[in-house]
Amino acid sequence: MIRGNDPILLTPGPLTTSLATKQAMLRDWGSWDATFNAITGSLCEDLVRIVHGEGTHVCVPMQGSGTFAVEAAIANVVPREGKVLVPQNGAYCQRILKICKVLGREHVELPVPEDQPATPAAIEAALARDPSITHVAQVHCETGAGVLNPLPEIAALCARLGKGLIVDAMSSFGAIPIDARTMPFDALVAATGKCIEGVPGMGFVLMRKTVLEGCQGNSHSLALDLYDQYSYMQKTTQWRFTPPTHVVAAFRAALDQFLEEGGQPVRGARYRRNYETLVRGMAELGFRPFLSPDVQAPIIVTFHAPADARYDFRTFYEKVRARGYILYPGKLTRVETFRVGCIGAIDDNEMRNVVTAIGEALREMGIDMRPGALVRAA
Amino acid sequence: MIRGNDPILLTPGPLTTSLATKQAMLRDWGSWDATFNAITGSLCEDLVRIVHGEGTHVCVPMQGSGTFAVEAAIANVVPREGKVLVPQNGAYCQRILKICKVLGREHVELPVPEDQPATPAAIEAALARDPSITHVAQVHCETGAGVLNPLPEIAALCARLGKGLIVDAMSSFGAIPIDARTMPFDALVAATGKCIEGVPGMGFVLMRKTVLEGCQGNSHSLALDLYDQYSYMQKTTQWRFTPPTHVVAAFRAALDQFLEEGGQPVRGARYRRNYETLVRGMAELGFRPFLSPDVQAPIIVTFHAPADARYDFRTFYEKVRARGYILYPGKLTRVETFRVGCIGAIDDNEMRNVVTAIGEALREMGIDMRPGALVRAA
Ligand SMILES: Cc1ncc(COP(=O)(O)O)c(C=O)c1O
Ligand SMILES: Cc1ncc(COP(=O)(O)O)c(C=O)c1O
Repeated sequence: MIRGNDPILLTPGPLTTSLATKQAMLRDWGSWDATFNAITGSLCEDLVRIVHGEGTHVCVPMQGSGTFAVEAAIANVVPREGKVLVPQNGAYCQRILKICKVLGREHVELPVPEDQPATPAAIEAALARDPSITHVAQVHCETGAGVLNPLPEIAALCARLGKGLIVDAMSSFGAIPIDARTMPFDALVAATGKCIEGVPGMGFVLMRKTVLEGCQGNSHSLALDLYDQYSYMQKTTQWRFTPPTHVVAAFRAALDQFLEEGGQPVRGARYRRNYETLVRGMAELGFRPFLSPDVQAPIIVTFHAPADARYDFRTFYEKVRARGYILYPGKLTRVETFRVGCIGAIDDNEMRNVVTAIGEALREMGIDMRPGALVRAA
Repeated sequence: MIRGNDPILLTPGPLTTSLATKQAMLRDWGSWDATFNAITGSLCEDLVRIVHGEGTHVCVPMQGSGTFAVEAAIANVVPREGKVLVPQNGAYCQRILKICKVLGREHVELPVPEDQPATPAAIEAALARDPSITHVAQVHCETGAGVLNPLPEIAALCARLGKGLIVDAMSSFGAIPIDARTMPFDALVAATGKCIEGVPGMGFVLMRKTVLEGCQGNSHSLALDLYDQYSYMQKTTQWRFTPPTHVVAAFRAALDQFLEEGGQPVRGARYRRNYETLVRGMAELGFRPFLSPDVQAPIIVTFHAPADARYDFRTFYEKVRARGYILYPGKLTRVETFRVGCIGAIDDNEMRNVVTAIGEALREMGIDMRPGALVRAA
């Protein structure tokens, strides 16, 4: 893969992008200019197509980080008197709960262990317990620990029970199959700097058109008003407020490369190869993933930290970074972990190299976790 | 000036940036990495220094377009039971009124003609009429028509009367003098893609520290919560949610160039030269600015459109664009105008060239506005 000579980001966004994607930012674009607005339009069309939402869904881009788009989706889709069920198995589910709280949307938390996926049965039971719930807000891949929640089954359940569904697909969109025809949703949120491999700076919400049309006046915010954003763009082809022009241009370049590579199936397969190479190599060093393989998304892997007094994440991070790889801290409260992302413009070579770098870092720290190592060390 | 070979943007943001600024986006940054967070920290310090706010004010960066930061400033600084006076002489003042309305903050509009600055006398009278007003929200340079509002006098008035002051300095920051010591304000908002000549994608709010400390719980939004953004950054040096890493890196490069050039005085002088060159050249073609020179900021100039049936903005725009210059439509409702920006990585050469391009476009459209031309044409 052609990149610049940057350290490799094994973080779940921002991630390593291709040189072609970055080079797309080497020009300035007028936000009123037709050539720029054609880029926005084509992006929106392609994003809808990725989830097979042609005719039923539209794409509303939103400036800011992914959280801005999640907040916008909740605020716009859930009416002020609505009530949201949030199956909660990690940091990004907790963030949705926080958003509901700040917005004053009634919400119910459905606690799920952080190493387990949400189950349709538990969701169905929660909905039966409280019939006043109007919407489910479901994180697809919970990037906190890396769990894949079963979106197809949850979407089918919501459709059957007539509940609205908002999906945070930030870290899965483009890598894991999502099909609006068989997994009906009202709104699905993702962002530029994840599996499409653009640079961060904007999110987008794929919305069921009939739902969007009923959203007027729901938003608590002018900036985050998806209805207003969409209506203005439909009327003028322009963004309401200044778009992040270079981020948009880079996203177009990234999306072109995504489509050339073969779209979601091929992108997902590359990430799975990255994931398998990583876990295999790490196992040889003595590392255990936090999750069981059957609930693990091939997006980001949480590893147990070495149970060794000589280990601390800062030192470990710096040593691996000095070898050109940027790791990510764990996001779990009860267990000491760290995370390694499998996404970005990287392939299984990089995964082999980071395993080597991690092995060297451990050696420098005097840590050996291989079976029998403790005995040998003693 | 060293740029790429892009069309020149004579628009008030996004604008033309230097090649060095764009090249700063040719690498990827981890948002957890210390080298990246040091960039954010240094940016914030430099931005506070530009308004001489060291010790009294802090900088809170905010993802999104400038409007996101304006909304965040209003929502955080004005308590839910506060009341905002908005002197209104253009599109960006109207936007503040709209924000107040959506947020449910009480507000009073003080209408000012769109070709006149707000006056301290009128503001003082409005404050006397309604003592329940707690804050004034003042646009510094009203980019709609290009009027410079008298910030020093308005800030002094607010300080004397004990009213809070929020300044939208989006299009003036870095080009027009702002001094927190002599023009006291609670919050002042600007963005990357304006007079510092970065790329768009993030705003920032310079806030009086004592005001910020009292803001907890004011925000209607998680994403736009300045108090939360600042506290988290203080604790961790990191952004709460993914920063637009490439936009931040480009902004650092742009700010380096701003400081090397000589800071605000030199930047402001270059823009003034651009402005004077433009107006002089346009006058020779027969164009009249909409504003009188004594109320005009050297940021963007509104010109009366030719009073000629052969004129339409679209055709004019395309013809000037074909020559490498991107103009901006007018934002006034009652008079047909267009706008030409004087800001960005451009100098008076560009202004001479755009005048030539405009002259050629008019000739192709069969329009001649020079004195006596109508007589000659008849
Ligand atoms: C599942 C999920 N939701 C939300 C977010 C938040 O996105 P951002 O940091 O861009 O606000 C992330 C970021 O990694 C994520 O993985
Ligand atoms: C004075 C002023 N306020 C606010 C804005 C809005 O900024 P944005 O378009 O980035 O949201 C602008 C943009 O030109 C401006 O000039």
